[in-house]
Amino acid sequence: MEQKMQQLKAILADLADLGGALAILSWDQQTYMPPGAAEMRGQQLGTIGRIAHEKGASKELGDLLKALKPYAASLDPDSDDARIVKHALRDYERATCIPPEFVVEQNEVTTLANQAWAEARAKSDFSIFHPHLEKIVELVHRYVGFFPPAEHPYDILLDAYEPGMKTSEVKAIFNALRPQQVELIKAISAKPQVDDSFLHQPFDEQKQWDFGVEVITKFGYDWQRGRQDKSTHPFTGGPGMNDVRLTTRVAPDFFNTMIFGTMHEAGHAMYGQGPSQALLRTNLTDGASLAVHESQSRMWENLVGRSLPFWQYFYPRLQEYFPQLKGVSLDSFYKGVNKVQPSLIRVEADEATYNLHIMLRLELEIAIVEGKVPVKDLPEAWNKKMKEYLGVTPPNDAVGVLQDIHWSWGLMGYFSTYALGNLISAQLWEKIDQDLPDLAAQIRQGKFEALLGWLREKIHIHGRKFEPQELAQRVTGSKIDSAPYVKYLKTKYGQIYGL
Amino acid sequence: MEQKMQQLKAILADLADLGGALAILSWDQQTYMPPGAAEMRGQQLGTIGRIAHEKGASKELGDLLKALKPYAASLDPDSDDARIVKHALRDYERATCIPPEFVVEQNEVTTLANQAWAEARAKSDFSIFHPHLEKIVELVHRYVGFFPPAEHPYDILLDAYEPGMKTSEVKAIFNALRPQQVELIKAISAKPQVDDSFLHQPFDEQKQWDFGVEVITKFGYDWQRGRQDKSTHPFTGGPGMNDVRLTTRVAPDFFNTMIFGTMHEAGHAMYGQGPSQALLRTNLTDGASLAVHESQSRMWENLVGRSLPFWQYFYPRLQEYFPQLKGVSLDSFYKGVNKVQPSLIRVEADEATYNLHIMLRLELEIAIVEGKVPVKDLPEAWNKKMKEYLGVTPPNDAVGVLQDIHWSWGLMGYFSTYALGNLISAQLWEKIDQDLPDLAAQIRQGKFEALLGWLREKIHIHGRKFEPQELAQRVTGSKIDSAPYVKYLKTKYGQIYGL
Repeated sequence: MEQKMQQLKAILADLADLGGALAILSWDQQTYMPPGAAEMRGQQLGTIGRIAHEKGASKELGDLLKALKPYAASLDPDSDDARIVKHALRDYERATCIPPEFVVEQNEVTTLANQAWAEARAKSDFSIFHPHLEKIVELVHRYVGFFPPAEHPYDILLDAYEPGMKTSEVKAIFNALRPQQVELIKAISAKPQVDDSFLHQPFDEQKQWDFGVEVITKFGYDWQRGRQDKSTHPFTGGPGMNDVRLTTRVAPDFFNTMIFGTMHEAGHAMYGQGPSQALLRTNLTDGASLAVHESQSRMWENLVGRSLPFWQYFYPRLQEYFPQLKGVSLDSFYKGVNKVQPSLIRVEADEATYNLHIMLRLELEIAIVEGKVPVKDLPEAWNKKMKEYLGVTPPNDAVGVLQDIHWSWGLMGYFSTYALGNLISAQLWEKIDQDLPDLAAQIRQGKFEALLGWLREKIHIHGRKFEPQELAQRVTGSKIDSAPYVKYLKTKYGQIYGL
Repeated sequence: MEQKMQQLKAILADLADLGGALAILSWDQQTYMPPGAAEMRGQQLGTIGRIAHEKGASKELGDLLKALKPYAASLDPDSDDARIVKHALRDYERATCIPPEFVVEQNEVTTLANQAWAEARAKSDFSIFHPHLEKIVELVHRYVGFFPPAEHPYDILLDAYEPGMKTSEVKAIFNALRPQQVELIKAISAKPQVDDSFLHQPFDEQKQWDFGVEVITKFGYDWQRGRQDKSTHPFTGGPGMNDVRLTTRVAPDFFNTMIFGTMHEAGHAMYGQGPSQALLRTNLTDGASLAVHESQSRMWENLVGRSLPFWQYFYPRLQEYFPQLKGVSLDSFYKGVNKVQPSLIRVEADEATYNLHIMLRLELEIAIVEGKVPVKDLPEAWNKKMKEYLGVTPPNDAVGVLQDIHWSWGLMGYFSTYALGNLISAQLWEKIDQDLPDLAAQIRQGKFEALLGWLREKIHIHGRKFEPQELAQRVTGSKIDSAPYVKYLKTKYGQIYGL
C-alpha cells in the first residue's frame, strides 16, 4: 500500500507540475504576452489542459484510488495521506465526468473570449464580447449536463469552488444578510457624508507602487517566492507555494485602486505561500476553498487595511510619499477610505455595499443557468439590478456588465464566494481578537508577525486539507455565520457615521 | 495516407504546444521568476520535458512514421509534407536513443546549474558552479553513449545543432580561417589604434533602451508578436513564430553592450518571426540550424549594425539621444564601434577577434568530451588559451570561464555554430549585394524593408525545411565557405585601419 501511495504521489506531482505550467502561461497571458500570441497561447493552454485532464482521469489513477480507499480509511483522518486520497477521489470523480475534448474546447474558447473581453471593455462595446459569452454560456450548460442531476443545476457550478455548498444555502445566507445591509446603508445615508475628495487627486504612479510594496512587505509577503506586476484586472497567480505572484493596477488620480487592490491580492498571495512545504507537489497546496481564500484577502484589505490602527502607523509614512496629504488629518483620512457610497465597480466598492454587487451577479448567473436571461439582454438586466439594489445606473458597459474578467474565463458559480469570504473574515477576526488581545497595539506599531503567524498556523499551513465548513468549525467553533460580519459593520460604521 | 498525415500533424501540434510551454517557462526563468521558485521550475520543466519526450518517442509516432515513409518519398521532396516527415523521422530517431528518465534528470540538473552559474558569476567564484558542471559533463558523456558510435564523440553533440556537420569539417574550416584572422589582427596591431573612449562614459539607461527599440522597430521586428525584456545574458526565446521574445542588457557606462546585443537578438527574433504561417504547429518552425540562425543575428549586428551606411542614418538620431556625442564625428564614431582589440568577453568581442573566442571554447569542449581536461582545471585552461590566442588573461573567472550561460544549460557542441554563422552571414551578404544593388543607399535612409524582405523570402519563410548546407547551396550557389567572410573583414578593416 505504501508503494501504491508513492505511485499516487508521483501522478499528483505530475499534475502539480502541469498545473504549475498552466499557471505561468496564464500569468504571462495577463501580464506580458504580446497580443499576436493569443491564438497560440490558447492552443498551448488547450493541449496542456487536455494532457493534465487525461492524467487526472486515467484508468491508472482510478485503479490506484480504488485500491487506496480502504488504506486511507485506516489512517488518521486528519493525516496528510488520508486527505490526499480523499481529495484525489473527489477530483477524479469530477474529472471523469468531463470528456477531454471538452476541456480543450473550453480552454480555446476562453482564451479568445478573454482577449475579446479586454478589447470590449477598453472600447466599452458589449457586442465584441457577446458572441464569445454566448459560447461560454453554451459550454456552461454542457458542463452541467455532464454531472448527475443536483438539487439545482447551479449547485454543480458552486461545488467546484465551494465544496459541499448548495445554491439554496447560499441564497438563505444572502437573504438573511441583505435586509441588514440595506438597513445599515439607509441609516448611513441619513447621516452627513464623509469627505474623501483628497483621495481623488493626482498621485504619482511610481510612488503609489512603492508605497504598496512597503505595506505588503511589512505584512510579510515573501518576495523570494513571488513578485508583483501590473495587469488590467488584479489577480494572484503562479504555480503556488514557492511561486505566488500578485498583480495590481495603479490609477493616476484615485488612491484607493492601488492600495486596497494590492492589500487584497497580498492576502491571497500570503495564503498561497503559507501551506506546509510537506504538501509541495501534492493535491493539497491550494486553499480550502475560494471563500476561505477570499476571507484572507478581505481580511488584509479591510479588517487590517481599512482599520484605524493600520493608518495610525502608515498614514505618517503615506504623508511622506504624498506631502499633498499633510493638510488632511488622520481622522479625516480614516473616514475617507471608509466612505460608504453605492457605486458602479465591485472591486472598488466599500465594505457596506460590496455584498450587494455579489447578490446581483449571483442572481444573474442563476438566471443564465436557468435560461431566463439571454446573453444579449445581460447589459440591460445588469443595469436594472444596479438601479434596484444600489440606486445607480452604469453610463456604459465598461463600468457595467463588462467590468469583471470572470465570465471571460468561463467562471460561473464563483462570485458568491466573495461575499462568503467577507463573512468568514469577520468570523476569524473575532477569534483572533480573543487569541491576540494586543493585536491593535501591534498594528499601530506596524507589526504583523503575530497576525500572519496566527493565520499560518490556523489556516494557511493546512492548504486544502480541510473543507471550508470543517475549517470554520475547527478554528472558530462554528460553521460559516454572518453574525460577526454584521456586528463588525454596525460597530465600525456606527462609530464613523455616528449612528 | 492523408489521414495518417493528419494524425502525424496532430502529434506534432501537441509537441509544438508542449515546446511552447517549455519556452515560456524558460523565458520566465531568465526574466521574472522569483529565486525561491527555482526548484519548482526545475520540476515543471522536468515533467513537461519528460511528457514531450514520451510523445516524441512513442510507439504510436514510430508506427505512423514507418507507414508514412514511402508516402513522403512519393511527394515533391521540397514540399512541406515531405519535409515534415523527413524531420520527424530524424527527431524520432534521436529521441528514441534517450531514455525519458535522462531527460527529466537533465532538466532538473540544468535548472539548478543555471541558478548556481548566475550566483557563481555574480560572485566570480567558480567553486559554486564546479559541482554542477561536473554533473553536466557526466550527463554529456552519458548522452553521447546513447548514440551509435560516430567518427568523433563530439560529432553527436554537434549534430544536434548543425545537422550533418562533422567535428573534422568544422576543425578544417577553423584551421583554414585561423591564420588569416591572426594575420589580419597582427596587421591591425601594427597600425595606430582608433579612439573609442567616447563609448565608455555614462549613458542614461532608459535612453539607451529607447534607442535600441527605435532601431529594431526600423529593422522590422514585429512587436505584435514579441517583446523585449532585460536579462543577465541576452537571449531570444518564446514559443516561436507568433511569440518571439528577445532580451537585452544595458551597461550604464558602455554603449556597445546594449546596441549590438539588441541588434543581434533582433536578428534571431526576426528569423523566428519569419517562417510561413503554414508551418505553424509543425516541426518546421525553427530555423535551419543554429549557424543559419547566427548568420541572421550577426548580419543585423555587424554587416548592418556596424556598417557606415547604418550610422550615416542613425548617428544623428543617436546624437539627439546623447548630446555628449555631438563633438564626436561620424567617422570617429564608425571607427570606434569597429575598434579591433583582443578582449575578455566573447559577446563584446569585435568581428576580427570573435572567432578566436569560439575556437578556444570548441577546443575546451572537445578536450572535456575526450576527458583530457578535468572540470576543476577549466579556469586555468581557459586563462591559458586566452593568453595564447588573444594575448589577454582574465583577472577573475566572472570575465573568464564563467562568462557564458551555455554550459549551465548543458549546451555543448553549440559554440562553433557562432563562428559558422559569421561565415554564412558574409556569404549571404555577397548575394544580397548582387540582388539589391542600392541597399547601401536604402540603409542610409533608414530603410530595411528590402533587406528583411529578401531574408524572409530566401531564408526565413522556409523555417527548418532545408538543412544548412542545402540552404546555403540553394541561396548562394555554394556550400558554407569562409572566403566571403575573410574578404569582408579584409576590405572593411583595411579601410578603417589603412592597411
